[in-house]
Amino acid sequence: VALLHALVSLGFGSLILCHVDHRLRGRASSGDALFVQRLAGKLGLRCVVFKSEVGKLAAGKKLSLETAARDARFECFASAAQANGCETIFLAHHADDQVETFLFNLFRGAGALGLGGMRTETTREIGGLSLQVVRPLLGVWRAEIDEYIAAHKLKFREDATNAGLGNTRSKMRHQVIPMIEQTLGREVRRAVWKTAEILRAQSDFLQSSIGIPGDELSVPELRALPDALQEVLLREWLKLKAVPDIGYELIQSIRGLLATDSARAKVNLPGGRHVRRRAKKLFVE
Amino acid sequence: VALLHALVSLGFGSLILCHVDHRLRGRASSGDALFVQRLAGKLGLRCVVFKSEVGKLAAGKKLSLETAARDARFECFASAAQANGCETIFLAHHADDQVETFLFNLFRGAGALGLGGMRTETTREIGGLSLQVVRPLLGVWRAEIDEYIAAHKLKFREDATNAGLGNTRSKMRHQVIPMIEQTLGREVRRAVWKTAEILRAQSDFLQSSIGIPGDELSVPELRALPDALQEVLLREWLKLKAVPDIGYELIQSIRGLLATDSARAKVNLPGGRHVRRRAKKLFVE
Repeated sequence: VALLHALVSLGFGSLILCHVDHRLRGRASSGDALFVQRLAGKLGLRCVVFKSEVGKLAAGKKLSLETAARDARFECFASAAQANGCETIFLAHHADDQVETFLFNLFRGAGALGLGGMRTETTREIGGLSLQVVRPLLGVWRAEIDEYIAAHKLKFREDATNAGLGNTRSKMRHQVIPMIEQTLGREVRRAVWKTAEILRAQSDFLQSSIGIPGDELSVPELRALPDALQEVLLREWLKLKAVPDIGYELIQSIRGLLATDSARAKVNLPGGRHVRRRAKKLFVE
Repeated sequence: VALLHALVSLGFGSLILCHVDHRLRGRASSGDALFVQRLAGKLGLRCVVFKSEVGKLAAGKKLSLETAARDARFECFASAAQANGCETIFLAHHADDQVETFLFNLFRGAGALGLGGMRTETTREIGGLSLQVVRPLLGVWRAEIDEYIAAHKLKFREDATNAGLGNTRSKMRHQVIPMIEQTLGREVRRAVWKTAEILRAQSDFLQSSIGIPGDELSVPELRALPDALQEVLLREWLKLKAVPDIGYELIQSIRGLLATDSARAKVNLPGGRHVRRRAKKLFVE
């Protein structure tokens, strides 16, 4: 709501509100949709509401609910953008989101490249469409947004999944981070936020050092790379192969295939696929 | 004690036990020294005990107690090594130490390069002496060491600062990490440990990309570097200048001097020194 208000105040006239109902939250969810539709009516903006059966999607593609929901959202955004000739998507992630994402990825072992966090500006290819994704609030703290909302007397609606403590992200926000700050007697969010900034710069540099990986990877060339670049290259390669939830364990298993004395020649991937080593090449099948 | 037992069992005969009394812990501290001396006697090893007034050192050099204590320990180790013709120092840091150090540095805003953690093997120059520093237990968990101690019925003595909850590191060990694991309902130490591994590989690669910085830095050359390398280069440069406790804020302040429109030409360093920009160069004075 705060982002929308700010964008409208800044003169962005032709905005389209896009709401995705994940069909996971019961009644709260249709309430969200209604709220978004009314808000759009009040501001004279177009509004698109999608329904996406995320539970089924996640089960079908063997993805986590969180990953399936994110993919579904981006597909809806892309479809709304294509239908309306939009090139830019604004998302309202804020600085606390960035910190929670960092700690979430750290504690689940996503590896260093998963820690760089979200970007203020990035380009995303979705279904053949190239969209600019902008997060203007990524450096703004939740408390500052609350002040903005209060100052402008904006009506808002708490996301049902945020208020409950049903998932890891909520626990991070409402329990873990406050407990850490209370126990250590210091504010830690800013330090974590800055670390995410630095790691993103590092991973940008590492990615620019390797270029775009090909369809198959040469084992001797991989072996010759420093450890840090092996990890980056394998991760980029798996991303291009649309492998979801790429974590440290998976990367290490694949690096295990590079050892000259490795008897193993196959590593399982989610969704029944695998990475295979044959004739000094790695490929996905 | 476990490390010592393991080294003796492996046939390392000519070990010298080195204990540094930081004069901070009152009676517990002389008890520690006595314990170490008796242990050495029992094993037939030489033993050196140093006394170091860390409180005064820290105040005099304007360092944190932790930094002053670490510097003092390494100076004692170097002096014992030189007197006895040793080339290698064994330290008993374990995997939990590594995880606590990572979180400690993350939450105090040390920046990404502070997160790589300790190394299993490294070389350290102390007072003109080049010493190999080995931490054989860095991949071994505290619980595994406890099992080893129990299995071999070793007598041990808990470090007085470990048992109390007087400092940040103890809080991390006894409160923060258990709380995180309990709240999230999962083990997080392994994930953090692995992240430290990856970040160390990354920072090794980044450091190898910049080489050794000179006495003064060229502002135009710094400007031309990617963000990640600017940070690494400045951090390495400050390390060579023996600047203690290098954090993200300091690096960012110095990067502020690089802006073409920067009116500021000076950044303060601990201990009354500063970084100055003049004639397109950065130098410490």
